[in-house]
Amino acid sequence: MLRGLSRAIVYTQTGDPTSVLSARTFSLPPPAPGTLNVKLLLAPINPADINVVQGVYPARPSLEALPDSAPTDQLFVAGNEGVAQVTHVASDVAGLNVGDWVIMTKPQSGTWASARQLRLDDVLKIPREAGEVHAATITVNPPTAWNMLNNFVHLNEGDFVVQNGANSAVGQAVIQIAAARGLKTLNFVRNRPDFPDLASKLKALGATEVLTYDDLTDRALVKTIMQDWTAGKGIRLGLNCVGGKDTTNMMRLLGEDAFLVSYGAMSREPLTLPTSPFIFSNLTCTGYWQARWSKTHSREDKESLMKSLVDLIVAGKLKEPEHEILTIGAQDPDEVAAQKVRDIMSKLLKGQYGKKVLLNMESPV
Amino acid sequence: MLRGLSRAIVYTQTGDPTSVLSARTFSLPPPAPGTLNVKLLLAPINPADINVVQGVYPARPSLEALPDSAPTDQLFVAGNEGVAQVTHVASDVAGLNVGDWVIMTKPQSGTWASARQLRLDDVLKIPREAGEVHAATITVNPPTAWNMLNNFVHLNEGDFVVQNGANSAVGQAVIQIAAARGLKTLNFVRNRPDFPDLASKLKALGATEVLTYDDLTDRALVKTIMQDWTAGKGIRLGLNCVGGKDTTNMMRLLGEDAFLVSYGAMSREPLTLPTSPFIFSNLTCTGYWQARWSKTHSREDKESLMKSLVDLIVAGKLKEPEHEILTIGAQDPDEVAAQKVRDIMSKLLKGQYGKKVLLNMESPV
Repeated sequence: MLRGLSRAIVYTQTGDPTSVLSARTFSLPPPAPGTLNVKLLLAPINPADINVVQGVYPARPSLEALPDSAPTDQLFVAGNEGVAQVTHVASDVAGLNVGDWVIMTKPQSGTWASARQLRLDDVLKIPREAGEVHAATITVNPPTAWNMLNNFVHLNEGDFVVQNGANSAVGQAVIQIAAARGLKTLNFVRNRPDFPDLASKLKALGATEVLTYDDLTDRALVKTIMQDWTAGKGIRLGLNCVGGKDTTNMMRLLGEDAFLVSYGAMSREPLTLPTSPFIFSNLTCTGYWQARWSKTHSREDKESLMKSLVDLIVAGKLKEPEHEILTIGAQDPDEVAAQKVRDIMSKLLKGQYGKKVLLNMESPV
Repeated sequence: MLRGLSRAIVYTQTGDPTSVLSARTFSLPPPAPGTLNVKLLLAPINPADINVVQGVYPARPSLEALPDSAPTDQLFVAGNEGVAQVTHVASDVAGLNVGDWVIMTKPQSGTWASARQLRLDDVLKIPREAGEVHAATITVNPPTAWNMLNNFVHLNEGDFVVQNGANSAVGQAVIQIAAARGLKTLNFVRNRPDFPDLASKLKALGATEVLTYDDLTDRALVKTIMQDWTAGKGIRLGLNCVGGKDTTNMMRLLGEDAFLVSYGAMSREPLTLPTSPFIFSNLTCTGYWQARWSKTHSREDKESLMKSLVDLIVAGKLKEPEHEILTIGAQDPDEVAAQKVRDIMSKLLKGQYGKKVLLNMESPV
């Protein structure tokens, strides 16, 4: 094969994404033993990806040298998640063929690129029936929702799960996966002028109840939830991506032997929790991080989880996240490519962008 | 047998222990089927016992009618823990003989009495070699320490455990049981004028290091603990009976996959914990309550734990708590008996009494 051109969004030091990110075009050699070359189809810009570029996230990308670079010219390739199509496989690679779709099993694989060379061990085949948008966003948020619903508390059909930040990507996945399992969800969001619209949207996804954090201070409502909705037992699984006092209030809805599982801290405030539920109600407060799960679970576990999620997708029970696609064209010079990424970073950093942005990077010609 | 006289410390409604507690003399009938009569030897006044009388503790004593009372005259008998000697057994009771010592397996057994009739299922034989003081205080604090050291994290010889409130009865048991297992303890206490004496006392029990909460704000020291003392790994088990900011600071000493186990909240302040260790370091925050353990574990489990503790006692590895004995004499009228208990309550409610008070109630003659 000829060496094809590729382009990646890279940085040599962490910092403000609107300034440290640049684009670099390089040539991709034929696959080395144990590797395959892929063309990236779509790669999301997740909030954590931005934190990685900022250098404030525990997962750091590995320094790498792109093929055309001088050996000393090491850099980071941005992007953690995405779906890619196999274009070439090394002769020793079995089980994957040209044209197959793959997703990344290795965190921080550097997916903000038009083409990459990846190790067979770092990818997993994904059926095309998943669809490009689903496949590009299937390795972080839906597994986080799935595992939080499954790995802490044994829940039976009809049991409630309570969560805050219910409009987040994970929150929406929780609503849908819970509904598919016959679980009820009690969903909390910030109060806002368009609350009825948001509540309708989440109910259309399968949310049982949608309330605001303000409702958590309504003692009569809390009593109704505890006594009537949960038959006096309280809720055994709480999911938190907010922190602060709204989470303290949400904790009051938990019953005996409950788990409060945190996967985010959007308020940037710590968790403040009374001690007595830990001692007398056997409350457990813990966290969930998909990257840790990936590191501590086998390829078989990952395949099994992906199969479960694809089944839900194919059955129409897990909808695509709301998204927009940002295309970096084949004709764009590197400077233009970099500016497009910096511009969208600038918008995303303002927060509440509402839609998932997916990069569609074409290889330079 | 003749009906012997007994006296119990009782209350008909919860409230201020210096006013709601009274003493009542009653006659004890021969043991009913499945029961035994016992003479209480020693029964401690634990902080939780006071909270039960106050009505602010989740465990409530059961209403009972003492034998001489009118059927409508129901009351609570105070006291949860104690050691008693068997004086009579029902003819259908096997495995216990007159003269044997027993401890209570049922919480809130009403041990502040000179003699009681108890169900065989609610007691456990304890060898006399344990000694009266140990036997009277063996069902709450030492098992709490033992189970917190064993049931959450697998620790290897040489590993550190960190705790606050290290001078508490549980804290001292933690130090000794950990030392017997070859574990190191990092013990935090309030700063105080006699800190060197307290540190010496705890080190004599086997404490590896004794520091004050103020030391937790010393960044250089925290770095030394994390890097040198624990070889960069941090500590995997933290035990908390304090809460508040000192616990937030103590949490910084924990490493990956650590448990922070709370069994008290002496500061009366909530736990305030950043979210990131939960997500990225897999921190688990939970609680421990011996009454729950007792309710959810078998008689065999309890016997096995008691045997382990008695073995430590006999080996000289678990010392008696510092204590004083308050005797309610056989000749004391009920009013005098009640006043003695109210007076000691008044002193204990001021806090920091320092010694465990053990009731030695003689039956009225």
